[in-house]
Amino acid sequence: MPAVPADLHDYLSQHDARIQRELFEFLRIPSVSARSEHDADTARAAEWTAESLRAAGLTATVHQTEGHPVVVGEWRGAGPAAPTVLVYGHYDVQPAEPLELWTSPAFEPTIRDGKLFARGSVDDKGQLFLHIKALEAHLAVRGRLPVNVLVLAEGEEEVGSEHLAPFIAANASLLASDAVIISDSAMFAPGLPSILSSLRGLAYFQIDVQGPAQDLHSGSYGGAVVNPAMALARILATLHDDAGHIAIAGFYDDVRDWPAAVRTQMKGLPFDAEQFRAETGATALGGEAGYTVLEQLWTRPTCEVNGLLSGYTGEGAKTVLPARAMAKVSCRLVPDQDPAKIESLMKAHVARVAPAGVTATVTHLHGGRPWRAELNGPLYDAARRALGAAFGREPVITGEGGSIPVVGDFERILGAPVLLVGFGLPGENAHAPDEWLSMENFTVGMRAIATLWDELGTGGVR
Amino acid sequence: MPAVPADLHDYLSQHDARIQRELFEFLRIPSVSARSEHDADTARAAEWTAESLRAAGLTATVHQTEGHPVVVGEWRGAGPAAPTVLVYGHYDVQPAEPLELWTSPAFEPTIRDGKLFARGSVDDKGQLFLHIKALEAHLAVRGRLPVNVLVLAEGEEEVGSEHLAPFIAANASLLASDAVIISDSAMFAPGLPSILSSLRGLAYFQIDVQGPAQDLHSGSYGGAVVNPAMALARILATLHDDAGHIAIAGFYDDVRDWPAAVRTQMKGLPFDAEQFRAETGATALGGEAGYTVLEQLWTRPTCEVNGLLSGYTGEGAKTVLPARAMAKVSCRLVPDQDPAKIESLMKAHVARVAPAGVTATVTHLHGGRPWRAELNGPLYDAARRALGAAFGREPVITGEGGSIPVVGDFERILGAPVLLVGFGLPGENAHAPDEWLSMENFTVGMRAIATLWDELGTGGVR
Repeated sequence: MPAVPADLHDYLSQHDARIQRELFEFLRIPSVSARSEHDADTARAAEWTAESLRAAGLTATVHQTEGHPVVVGEWRGAGPAAPTVLVYGHYDVQPAEPLELWTSPAFEPTIRDGKLFARGSVDDKGQLFLHIKALEAHLAVRGRLPVNVLVLAEGEEEVGSEHLAPFIAANASLLASDAVIISDSAMFAPGLPSILSSLRGLAYFQIDVQGPAQDLHSGSYGGAVVNPAMALARILATLHDDAGHIAIAGFYDDVRDWPAAVRTQMKGLPFDAEQFRAETGATALGGEAGYTVLEQLWTRPTCEVNGLLSGYTGEGAKTVLPARAMAKVSCRLVPDQDPAKIESLMKAHVARVAPAGVTATVTHLHGGRPWRAELNGPLYDAARRALGAAFGREPVITGEGGSIPVVGDFERILGAPVLLVGFGLPGENAHAPDEWLSMENFTVGMRAIATLWDELGTGGVR
Repeated sequence: MPAVPADLHDYLSQHDARIQRELFEFLRIPSVSARSEHDADTARAAEWTAESLRAAGLTATVHQTEGHPVVVGEWRGAGPAAPTVLVYGHYDVQPAEPLELWTSPAFEPTIRDGKLFARGSVDDKGQLFLHIKALEAHLAVRGRLPVNVLVLAEGEEEVGSEHLAPFIAANASLLASDAVIISDSAMFAPGLPSILSSLRGLAYFQIDVQGPAQDLHSGSYGGAVVNPAMALARILATLHDDAGHIAIAGFYDDVRDWPAAVRTQMKGLPFDAEQFRAETGATALGGEAGYTVLEQLWTRPTCEVNGLLSGYTGEGAKTVLPARAMAKVSCRLVPDQDPAKIESLMKAHVARVAPAGVTATVTHLHGGRPWRAELNGPLYDAARRALGAAFGREPVITGEGGSIPVVGDFERILGAPVLLVGFGLPGENAHAPDEWLSMENFTVGMRAIATLWDELGTGGVR
């Protein structure tokens, strides 16, 4: 097992305080891509990312899109014969609401017990930033990298990356690469470096149910006019059967069996379902019958309610028969489910079960394909060695319940294999209040990635 | 059929502009009893009501309670041997939200096409105020009334009248009456004066479903952690069967059959279900199978969702597995259902159907008993004659789907029969944006009530 090169290690140690200061600066920018009132902040985060790349020794350009900008950093000093590796990350973050549930403010980074709390700390600013600093270490200490490097940072990951695939396609020769590296995921456990073998896809819907033209008095009209909130509840209740299977006709048609070797390795992971339950605070776990928790999370699709709104939700009681009701509903998808096909199945299902007297509309807000890695070849071998060097033990192969829609796009458009190596941890609250990043993972992860460039130089990329 | 006495008619006509100005002033006070930020406004509306009673020639006292004040006006000039009649109304109003759906501001009274638009115009400030002005006409023109009069105006009708029954009980000798008159309901159709024979009761609940301790990433946890919003939807979907019957065990046990004579009269009312549907804007009517629309509205209990809230409800998509979900759910009750019994049935039902992995809590926010009138005796005969005089035709007997919880309290505590004669109209948006009161009904209703006092003097009260 190799070691972290001493020159890079020393550089990162010497600049530790400055690196942390810069990371805090990045995290203070409330680049919430879902909210138009934060558009200026999101643009500012793009500029900040470009400046940070330039300071590291790359050239960088902020490319405007129909949505939020794409930042591209380049270092091509290894020459045209050398391979090119693209690092992807995102500078946008989830909305921080509900703000009152944060222990310290979402956009004021605070370290407590070795955890860095801030919106975007782990998802994904902190992980993008450790890549930039690993590159900076190489260029500052040695003046060069063993391969050509591209860094692509987008600002729409949290809202479906709508303009990224078109951008990659339109700039395919600029972005031509032999491999893609992404750090936007979690390690299986503290001290256990992890390579991700799969991602779930996503099909995110809004279901709007319209009843009467306006809110009515529930006494004067209740009993004869169909209640859209009750209709919505009845529609949502048809999405699963009593065993937790999704009851949309055709929903499982394209779900592939998982490779036996990966399933076996998965069962050997040090996973304690009771501890997982306790961390969530739920009184019991549930979900689809017949699968372990890790299988439910990594290998099985879901259908979740992400939001509900109808009628009167304030203090006290208002006897209103609401005019409309809304649910945000999203399905996590597994190979080879296709978001477009799931969209038509969902629309057909809702049309079938919606009662007379209301109009139910399904809008597909965004989607992304599921993904599964091949796990073989020099890219993965280099990753195993670099993670081993920095963390002192072999990485494990894991799955991931979340979605990174762009992974499939990279493979498809650039024809390059993707390596997913992330430094989050279970319980990191990525889309919730009190999101955090382990400072130890940030520090060791930065050294692992610095080492990875050397390993790619030695062992090749593909 | 008698006529409206000319002296009272002329007085009301001569003072028409001032009366309307005063009504506008009353409606401008945003006395929203459900919202603590409006407590000062609600108190101001109580003072305004008392001043208005004094201006009409009564004495008036504002009585503080644990909640909003109760205003009592008195005129006892008919002497201790004469009967006493109590007029009840309420000066509080429903919340005005959603504000953006009002054509003109909720608290800026505006007349369009003969309709007075304002929150509280019909429910119930306008109707309470026409009683005050009918009393003023008698006292201004004749210096006396044929019977003793009490006016009781409360400020908690829209939040369950929690402190009213205790107030009546504690002041039973002050409030001792031979009859109670309430105008807080609607006529069956324009030009068709109506006497209400029944009210539905209410049992209003909040159902809170708690899942994980905090919002979770729907990718990292979805599929294994029970989604509280989905659990809530599944709970709500069990409240009815597919034919629209309420599926809570024991729910119909105390529902009485309706008197044959009232049912026959009900079927003869000029009611067009298709027009009713068109007015609501719904694509079709629904509800419990086997009943006409008027039977559904007046004689059958309901279970409605009044509000839903969970997770992310803003712009765009947020992939959150929410920590909690909330529904406001209310049941309209019919004789002889008891809100306290319905509360225990609802709690038992939710406890039975709530899935493992979430905690479902049912809170009873408020309730009121259903009511049915006897329809016989001099009080009802006087009302028939007075309405006939003012509107030029015999009143019809109707039911009402809404609730006025205090009606049962008056009968129980004061031992006095209650007459419900209201001047609203179908489509008046009582609990919705663009609430309105027909200016013609206000004008004619004021004359009908002025006439009623004479008829009670002639024919007696009980």
